[in-house]
Amino acid sequence: MKPRNAFYAQSGGVTAVINASACGVIETCRKHPQRIATLYAGRHGIVGALMEDLVDTRRESAAAIRALRHTPSGAFGSARYKLRKFEDDPTQYLRLIEVFKAHDIGYFFYNGGGDSADTCLKVSQLAERLGYPIQAIHIPKTVDNDLPMTDCCPGFGSVAKYVAVSIREAGFDVASMAKTSTKVFVLEVMGRHAGWIAAAGGLAAEQAADAPHIILFPEIAFDEDRFCARVKRSVEKYGYCAIVVSEGVRDAAGKFLSETGGRDAFGHAQLGGVAPFIAQRIKVRLGYKYHWAVADYLQRAARHIASKVDVEQAYAVGKAAVELALKGHNAVMPAIVRVSDRPYRWKIGMADLESVANKEKMLPRDYITADGFHITAKARRYLSGLIRGEDYPPYKDGLPQYVVLKNVPVKKQLKKGFVL
Amino acid sequence: MKPRNAFYAQSGGVTAVINASACGVIETCRKHPQRIATLYAGRHGIVGALMEDLVDTRRESAAAIRALRHTPSGAFGSARYKLRKFEDDPTQYLRLIEVFKAHDIGYFFYNGGGDSADTCLKVSQLAERLGYPIQAIHIPKTVDNDLPMTDCCPGFGSVAKYVAVSIREAGFDVASMAKTSTKVFVLEVMGRHAGWIAAAGGLAAEQAADAPHIILFPEIAFDEDRFCARVKRSVEKYGYCAIVVSEGVRDAAGKFLSETGGRDAFGHAQLGGVAPFIAQRIKVRLGYKYHWAVADYLQRAARHIASKVDVEQAYAVGKAAVELALKGHNAVMPAIVRVSDRPYRWKIGMADLESVANKEKMLPRDYITADGFHITAKARRYLSGLIRGEDYPPYKDGLPQYVVLKNVPVKKQLKKGFVL
Repeated sequence: MKPRNAFYAQSGGVTAVINASACGVIETCRKHPQRIATLYAGRHGIVGALMEDLVDTRRESAAAIRALRHTPSGAFGSARYKLRKFEDDPTQYLRLIEVFKAHDIGYFFYNGGGDSADTCLKVSQLAERLGYPIQAIHIPKTVDNDLPMTDCCPGFGSVAKYVAVSIREAGFDVASMAKTSTKVFVLEVMGRHAGWIAAAGGLAAEQAADAPHIILFPEIAFDEDRFCARVKRSVEKYGYCAIVVSEGVRDAAGKFLSETGGRDAFGHAQLGGVAPFIAQRIKVRLGYKYHWAVADYLQRAARHIASKVDVEQAYAVGKAAVELALKGHNAVMPAIVRVSDRPYRWKIGMADLESVANKEKMLPRDYITADGFHITAKARRYLSGLIRGEDYPPYKDGLPQYVVLKNVPVKKQLKKGFVL
Repeated sequence: MKPRNAFYAQSGGVTAVINASACGVIETCRKHPQRIATLYAGRHGIVGALMEDLVDTRRESAAAIRALRHTPSGAFGSARYKLRKFEDDPTQYLRLIEVFKAHDIGYFFYNGGGDSADTCLKVSQLAERLGYPIQAIHIPKTVDNDLPMTDCCPGFGSVAKYVAVSIREAGFDVASMAKTSTKVFVLEVMGRHAGWIAAAGGLAAEQAADAPHIILFPEIAFDEDRFCARVKRSVEKYGYCAIVVSEGVRDAAGKFLSETGGRDAFGHAQLGGVAPFIAQRIKVRLGYKYHWAVADYLQRAARHIASKVDVEQAYAVGKAAVELALKGHNAVMPAIVRVSDRPYRWKIGMADLESVANKEKMLPRDYITADGFHITAKARRYLSGLIRGEDYPPYKDGLPQYVVLKNVPVKKQLKKGFVL
């Protein structure tokens, strides 16, 4: 069998470990030159395929590819771009086939979350629908941890660790200051739809006195009275109150708290996140001095404090994707299968992409305590293994050494461009 | 000479390494039982002395004290509390003498910033003014790096490293996303008066294309037109723009940008920090999609990414404080003396407390580029050594293991309490 070429791209919000998956894909492809001739990477996800904007991964040294394992973000550029339905607009698919044909792409590896699984699924149907022979394998990635059919999602464990470490550290800080100064600290974390990341903050609290004392989940409607009573109790009992709040928290009417603010001097909607809003409500209701932080991209880029388990899983799904392709699979995704909780052990399984695309796995209600303000033992059992181990990047002069690839462009074969 | 007892307390905003100084003080005291019988720690800074709220550090195990070296925050509680002038209110000083007499305190070690140096100086004058024999030694600590007479301040190096690492990581993230999504990222850091912390972010940019592309300093009045032009240039040249902004940035009229916003739905002054304000101005003027983060306490509590040099210096000033006391000094502070830039080498010197108290060391103008948007080679030479080396805390189950001391209270000797 004549070797064919492969395509790999990164899609959606990047993570601390998506490049570890890239490393797994590239190193594994390089071990099979008799089956995969050249691995091309698409610039900016599927956009790279549509625009014929490819880079030749052979031009990167083994050391540079190895360094991807400890480099956060998407080394080939990511994108937020969703293919339209085949029925609505076949031109995108015809274009993909043109590009794939021009570069003899027989394997398509797509590294992303739920939307990207949908893209990958559509590509996997090119053979059946349009007669172009290709195998499409999805590689799971998302800090949101909301993909079904996999026990967890590479990218999540490292954010989880960042949030748990950060709220523990900030908790120690506030505990020191509370006697004469700040009594309340609010940390805003990601998770617009599901409270997985907020829940991970709960791991820092090994006892009731530990930070965080309160977690606000998108799954639980915000009740200001109950919340303020809880803050007061924490300050009176422990001297201070540390809070993790998900950006996706809503009020009883379903409106995001981050949107309930007013207008600034220029008449624009209030800039804030939810953390400053919550902090201000506490100040108004209880008079406590507060501080707040919004971690934003810092949390998902924090490769310096990545979870070792997460890095290993990210690499493993990249490697497995290539192996599944070489076994002849199409329209599948390597998945993380939990073997045991304590000690946490896992292995790689396989999921059908039809069961993955466009579905969100929400935080189960029994991971949240009955009062809605913390995580249960069950959540702790699930989450605990995912933040295990440290995997520090190399440092030089006090700073982590992350690689920037050369990303040498592949000569375009097609005369025609494409308008997105 | 009969041994006397010692008092140690922590004051002002805590840091990732102030407990390393505590560790240096306690371990060194323990080596000199013939001179220092018991080291008492004050709860919440000078408040602990005024309230006779002391803990017996002998009750802590050697392992617990050793663990202070890798534990952020103030293990004995800190405080924001300044002694009044002796002439205005001698009762505070008379009370201190009562408490010190009751516990035979002959050595006073005070660990803090500029305000705390003032407190320490006042205590050092008790002998002269009121005839109570005591030696007072100040131990430098402040993330603001604004103490004079020392080349740098323990606590600063670790915040500097946190900020440089974080903006590098976030910069990688935004670079990945910029093609189809976020083009501008703004990170707000501490430094109400001086731009030392913001400047440290500049270390991440080893080349012009690297994040951060722009730094906003409190020392440079914010000029929105010039700033927006610079953001536009960065996006057009590098595809994205990463910005570090000090919380203390002001407009040309001297007003904090963080206070220029409007009122929220409840009529309260806008909650924001300066990062959301800046980000919103960019959106309005240039239309770029943005993200912003406010690191707040996370930056000064981030022991997990502390600078090794900083930890070593923090320990060294604690140790030196005790040694200076044993040599008979009063009203002094161990200082960091720079021996060379490359390689960075330092030693411990001694500064007169009169020269330290109530003075702020500002960021020199020649550490900021002529255009006001970045740091110079001179700044880089100064800052670079301070973030060198990593000093990771121990981890268990994926989380750093920080110590909480027993803090066993010392029996009160005085019948009378004290009202702060």
